[in-house]
Amino acid sequence: MTDYPRLRLKKNEDRRLRAGHAWIFSNEVDIAATPLKALAAGDLAVVENAKGESLGLAYVNPDSLISARLLCRDTHTSIDSRFFVKRLERARDWRERVYPGPYYRLAYGESDGLPGVVIDRFGEVFVVQTNTAGMEKLQAPLLAALETLFSPRAVVLKNTSSLRALEGLGNETRILAGTLDGPVEIVENGARFRVDPVEGQKTGWFFDHRDNRAKLAELCRGKRVLDVFAYAGAWGVQAAVAGAARVDCVDASAAALALAADNARLNGVAERMDFIAADAFEFLKQAREERRHYDVVVLDPPAFIKRKKDMNPGLEAYRRLNQGAMQVLAYGGVLVSASCSFHLQREVLHDLLRATARHLDRHLVLFGRGGQAADHPVHPAIPETDYLKAYFCAVGQAL
Amino acid sequence: MTDYPRLRLKKNEDRRLRAGHAWIFSNEVDIAATPLKALAAGDLAVVENAKGESLGLAYVNPDSLISARLLCRDTHTSIDSRFFVKRLERARDWRERVYPGPYYRLAYGESDGLPGVVIDRFGEVFVVQTNTAGMEKLQAPLLAALETLFSPRAVVLKNTSSLRALEGLGNETRILAGTLDGPVEIVENGARFRVDPVEGQKTGWFFDHRDNRAKLAELCRGKRVLDVFAYAGAWGVQAAVAGAARVDCVDASAAALALAADNARLNGVAERMDFIAADAFEFLKQAREERRHYDVVVLDPPAFIKRKKDMNPGLEAYRRLNQGAMQVLAYGGVLVSASCSFHLQREVLHDLLRATARHLDRHLVLFGRGGQAADHPVHPAIPETDYLKAYFCAVGQAL
Repeated sequence: MTDYPRLRLKKNEDRRLRAGHAWIFSNEVDIAATPLKALAAGDLAVVENAKGESLGLAYVNPDSLISARLLCRDTHTSIDSRFFVKRLERARDWRERVYPGPYYRLAYGESDGLPGVVIDRFGEVFVVQTNTAGMEKLQAPLLAALETLFSPRAVVLKNTSSLRALEGLGNETRILAGTLDGPVEIVENGARFRVDPVEGQKTGWFFDHRDNRAKLAELCRGKRVLDVFAYAGAWGVQAAVAGAARVDCVDASAAALALAADNARLNGVAERMDFIAADAFEFLKQAREERRHYDVVVLDPPAFIKRKKDMNPGLEAYRRLNQGAMQVLAYGGVLVSASCSFHLQREVLHDLLRATARHLDRHLVLFGRGGQAADHPVHPAIPETDYLKAYFCAVGQAL
Repeated sequence: MTDYPRLRLKKNEDRRLRAGHAWIFSNEVDIAATPLKALAAGDLAVVENAKGESLGLAYVNPDSLISARLLCRDTHTSIDSRFFVKRLERARDWRERVYPGPYYRLAYGESDGLPGVVIDRFGEVFVVQTNTAGMEKLQAPLLAALETLFSPRAVVLKNTSSLRALEGLGNETRILAGTLDGPVEIVENGARFRVDPVEGQKTGWFFDHRDNRAKLAELCRGKRVLDVFAYAGAWGVQAAVAGAARVDCVDASAAALALAADNARLNGVAERMDFIAADAFEFLKQAREERRHYDVVVLDPPAFIKRKKDMNPGLEAYRRLNQGAMQVLAYGGVLVSASCSFHLQREVLHDLLRATARHLDRHLVLFGRGGQAADHPVHPAIPETDYLKAYFCAVGQAL
């Protein structure tokens, strides 16, 4: 412990940590006492309050707005492969308790006490995404821990997040260990999917909507379903497997739709599905003009509000999208309106749905309020860990 | 339409209605133009804005803070049994879509376009609770509509809500139609329960937590479960049916526990359950002193914050209760922390859980955020329709 440099906070700037958060912002550091610039990106340090009392062990990055992230509160802990084994064991035990197969987000950053890293597990293949200089420096013990616990067939490093630039890190994708030749197969809510960790978006799969997809699938038997921003067909294929009469998957990317069609065949539901390469807004406009109707519409768009400055155009995009969806929804239909924009607050989306339904003179009620699946647990002191919204709406004729 | 008296709003006081809400408060009425006191409690009236434009048809109560509640926007609608048949048909169709059996809240007030009334369905037995003078006056066409659609074996009027006093109404419980001799049996999430509409609390059953109970039951296999404020054993029995090793049901009421034990036997799980008549706070204190531990604890207390003035003692009660629960939870355990207090905001409960876990030096994450079941849909313009919270927490050792 005495080997680590110390990072002293200004008076009262330990409040966030005391509340349970794990981050230290650069303006909270007493740089007169402990110059941030004396440390290198990724160094470990003992964080202390203004009185010199130790608060925990963190890794630092003097070049980032977030100067340090707490790894643990006990400053006597060695940050080695045993540390990672303990953290990953605990994370794994939780996932094994809530999900039947080895397909889940194994590590979800700060919520699992592993700041700056997410790991998705696709059976014996693990995809690691590190977003900070500190976690990048700890890659060797992290990888050793994965080997100890899981003896993976392959570990893929998929460092392609836009967050990395904030830490002064470039992007790279490579196989860290083992071998991987092409896509791997996973099971989600009883349906099978092929996932490509190397070529796919992010880690190759979005486990975060799993519980929401299960909830929706129950409502799709015999229904006409529209899956907008379908990507690999996670929502649409599960709806078809659950007995949907027809499913239209819309995505701007032909490559994504090829994946979706492949997954439809894998589950024997391709004959009830269509795959339409189109802009979501254009598709909805045209469907409305052609008076086509669906019983269920799923909107699972990419983040329209990536940064606060995107707020106004982003809100307008969400509004137009939800309006377009309601306009192709048959009376009594179900709309699932999702957003993965952290900056779009739950209450704002709620109100957007209210206002849009009123504008169209529809009676809309909310019968479910989904969030991230149980393998993306929310840390109650870290709002940043809570980004996913999925409102389940029943939309009917005006009362 | 021309037969109805008119109720004029002051300038701009139509905003809430335009946003989708259904209530008019007494201070929003232009009583110089249309004296509220000229109307009798329960009369129908056409609501108009300050320009005299019709906004909808409402029933009024000049003696209540809520002077009027909108029944429909179209002022040409006749409020007769056909009106209720249409509303109830739509409500029924939705419930039949989301639930497998005829056991649900058939009508949930304003969310179903039926302000001031809830109806629970227990198979062929219907329990009606009217909370306003207006709906009380419409009892005959409502009952006729129930007869038309369902030919019920019995309709029970269970007018025992504290809300009735605000409308100048007394309490009464009586059989409106048909006959009822003792409890009726329902099925929830595959488990059987006996419900007593006449003697039981509220309508006899709380359907609102159904989806939350299903979610929890999945996590109970082989676990030691504690169900605090167990009432008729809805959570505890479902946990046992799902394979819990042991379930302790705690309730202050011996009569409630007798119901719970009866329901345990009905499902063949009585030998794995215990029923403890005790004050919840005392029980948790004693369990802690005896170092007893549970893998799962469910807190489903009555509303501790019934009115805004109960806020501080209510918050303190929630805090003590959740602290007590965390103290008897084994590491890696699951806490379901519910609140049915409308005045306890979701974010406040979230922060209470954060602070309590920090105080006890536990790592707590939220892996689910439950609300009301799909037969209690939230009207997005009427915050009062959204009262139920259930946070699913994984509580572990400090990181």
